[in-house]
Amino acid sequence: MNRKVNLLMFSGDFDKAMAALILANTAKEMKLDVTMFFAFWGLFLVRDPASLSTDHKTTYEKMFGMMTPKGIEDLPLSKMNFAGIGKEMLKEMMKDDDTPSLSAFLKGAQNKGVKFYGCKLSMEVMGFKKEEMIPQLEVVDAKTYMEDALESDLQLFI
Amino acid sequence: MNRKVNLLMFSGDFDKAMAALILANTAKEMKLDVTMFFAFWGLFLVRDPASLSTDHKTTYEKMFGMMTPKGIEDLPLSKMNFAGIGKEMLKEMMKDDDTPSLSAFLKGAQNKGVKFYGCKLSMEVMGFKKEEMIPQLEVVDAKTYMEDALESDLQLFI
Amino acid sequence: MNRKVNLLMFSGDFDKAMAALILANTAKEMKLDVTMFFAFWGLFLVRDPASLSTDHKTTYEKMFGMMTPKGIEDLPLSKMNFAGIGKEMLKEMMKDDDTPSLSAFLKGAQNKGVKFYGCKLSMEVMGFKKEEMIPQLEVVDAKTYMEDALESDLQLFI
Repeated sequence: MNRKVNLLMFSGDFDKAMAALILANTAKEMKLDVTMFFAFWGLFLVRDPASLSTDHKTTYEKMFGMMTPKGIEDLPLSKMNFAGIGKEMLKEMMKDDDTPSLSAFLKGAQNKGVKFYGCKLSMEVMGFKKEEMIPQLEVVDAKTYMEDALESDLQLFI
Repeated sequence: MNRKVNLLMFSGDFDKAMAALILANTAKEMKLDVTMFFAFWGLFLVRDPASLSTDHKTTYEKMFGMMTPKGIEDLPLSKMNFAGIGKEMLKEMMKDDDTPSLSAFLKGAQNKGVKFYGCKLSMEVMGFKKEEMIPQLEVVDAKTYMEDALESDLQLFI
Repeated sequence: MNRKVNLLMFSGDFDKAMAALILANTAKEMKLDVTMFFAFWGLFLVRDPASLSTDHKTTYEKMFGMMTPKGIEDLPLSKMNFAGIGKEMLKEMMKDDDTPSLSAFLKGAQNKGVKFYGCKLSMEVMGFKKEEMIPQLEVVDAKTYMEDALESDLQLFI
């Protein structure tokens, strides 16, 4: 049986998403199985910017959908307190260094067969519909996450 | 031997507490053993709002006790940078969706027999007394946490 | 074979660094093997304040180096939203309680033989050179981290 990595994606931060996707891509290149479970703010990583909709949503859900990041490139940095370091500066430094963009890492994970799980309860609370997410996303409950995590050799809360 | 989950509760955030308590309740329903170890800001989750006191505390400890969240419903959100999303909005969306409150999830974890550990060093630094915490809380050192975590099948830092 | 702990140090926060270094020191006292892998903001923990340089850096890298924490005592707190609690207050409370300083915990980890890994990609993006870091730091790629983590009995993302 393959060794297995399970990443619980809680935060919707650009930099943490970057770290997690680099780990996921690396693990797949090492022939490991990888599951990413997106809950709460983590769901912002797997919204499909081209498929967003306001149909069948409450007023709060519509506001929430409009005010929050519309996709992975739209995520904020986790750090506000390192004076003056913005996402643009980090992106510029990554470009100088030929590091791929965050979308490229996400696309890589999709192509390499990372398993994408979305937390059912979080999606209901936030009013996100399956059709608004990347096509690979499977909507599951916390029990399914737990079973997958317990079988894994490395589990992280990110 | 039962499979076992160990959650190190470091952050004192409303949303992370919610995620962790949903995992803890789910794990208990799956007949897993669950330990939650509360350190640093995580201790705010297990203060008992009805038992707080300022006896035998230094000035800093008194100030600290007064200025910080007095119990689980008092916790802030981890995210300040998704423009305009406040805790009230999230709570409203949870209510629309019939999701139980954070206190209900904590009560559930207490009733289901989750093991509650409090970090001795953190409690000393913050000036929190055992009598001010929920009755289930056992005060232990980092070595006890480590032994419990090493025996577990899933460990997360939250 | 020794039981093993692997800590992925992502955040550059004073309080999380404290928690992680207490765990690392405790684990070494229990005769466990410990690896700390420093990536992104976590690299701020292992900059050597006495060895910083601006040689062979781009303008962004120079700015980044100057604007960010110059060593472990320079790190900010993870929490900005507990009204009025600053790092100085926490340090004062630790002093009242005879808790060692963060530098002392780092020195302890260095002396006890914790393995220090620095993320190659993060160092390149941030423009940090090996000579600017603590001497124990070995620069490795994500694959090396992954192998070490998979062999460990406890892995945390901090």
